[in-house]
Amino acid sequence: MAIRYPNGKLWKAKQNVANPVPVEIQYSNRGMTLEDDLNETNLYYRENGIAVIHKKPTPIQIVSVDYPKRSAAVIKEAYFKQASTTDYNGVYKGKYIDFEAKETKNSSFPLKNIHDHQIEHMKAVLEQNGICFLIIRFTKLNQIYFLEAEKLMHFWERQKNGGRKSISHQEIVECGHHIPLGYCPRVDYISIIDKLYF
Amino acid sequence: MAIRYPNGKLWKAKQNVANPVPVEIQYSNRGMTLEDDLNETNLYYRENGIAVIHKKPTPIQIVSVDYPKRSAAVIKEAYFKQASTTDYNGVYKGKYIDFEAKETKNSSFPLKNIHDHQIEHMKAVLEQNGICFLIIRFTKLNQIYFLEAEKLMHFWERQKNGGRKSISHQEIVECGHHIPLGYCPRVDYISIIDKLYF
Repeated sequence: MAIRYPNGKLWKAKQNVANPVPVEIQYSNRGMTLEDDLNETNLYYRENGIAVIHKKPTPIQIVSVDYPKRSAAVIKEAYFKQASTTDYNGVYKGKYIDFEAKETKNSSFPLKNIHDHQIEHMKAVLEQNGICFLIIRFTKLNQIYFLEAEKLMHFWERQKNGGRKSISHQEIVECGHHIPLGYCPRVDYISIIDKLYF
Repeated sequence: MAIRYPNGKLWKAKQNVANPVPVEIQYSNRGMTLEDDLNETNLYYRENGIAVIHKKPTPIQIVSVDYPKRSAAVIKEAYFKQASTTDYNGVYKGKYIDFEAKETKNSSFPLKNIHDHQIEHMKAVLEQNGICFLIIRFTKLNQIYFLEAEKLMHFWERQKNGGRKSISHQEIVECGHHIPLGYCPRVDYISIIDKLYF
């Protein structure tokens, strides 16, 4: 098992002098996707009674299913469907929590990573006073930000009105909230929710 | 080709006129499953800005996927997984809403319709002060009830302590809340939530 420092950096007993890993890759590619990190974070929240938040299953359009005798049904033909909501939701202190998580290799966040349906869903959640946001990881910088859905809407509108098709890193630094990488939990977004909403 | 629900039950497009279904079943089977009715209800709630509640996609274990050139990815082998949470969740007036929906042809509600994982999930939601419940349809009587998760836990514990493996219709009438069938929305469970929690 890989052992890591609280900041997520891999701990190594010895440097491999014969094949030194380039410093940039060591920092940027921790071998875990944002989804992995969030699944572990959510598991930590659930196991410690902090919050109940799950990733929703990927929506699938099933076309054909076989029912072999005395065996489990086998799906023989199916297709991925576009999600009509965000990927994560759940409950924290009675409040509804809803978010989408995206990582980008770019130096800005491309708005095409979010679908129209998801924007409509987020607006509807905000109208119901749900807590709704985006978690963005800039993989090259290995930085993670929490961006409230209200602020995402501002950049979405700017794009609709002919403005830029992405949110710059600088804008996210200014409008969003940096989530420091931890060990347990890895991506402690609840600490941001505590500051902003409670 | 036979069309089946994920649970393997055969779907029928039309009543067979040569073999008419007895009247009793005709009333109870409106040609809509509880799931259909709840999907329409949730659509009504969303379109009218009342609540944002969705059914979660069925969880699928994907084993093999084909990527034909210039076409969408095709899932070639996959299996249904047991859900680790309830099927429906969302937000109403900022509060987290979470429920499972089940129909039974029996005159009582068999507790085997609910899995251990779902019970654990419901307990965790209650600890986070979420609004959590069960919607039960007795198909023969065509009656629908709202049963708070706290009350379900009572019957679950009774079973664990060697008691009956079901909840009788009479117990549900006494402990639960009858949801009258409507047209729009069909199964107005939010009206019960309003009475109980707001």
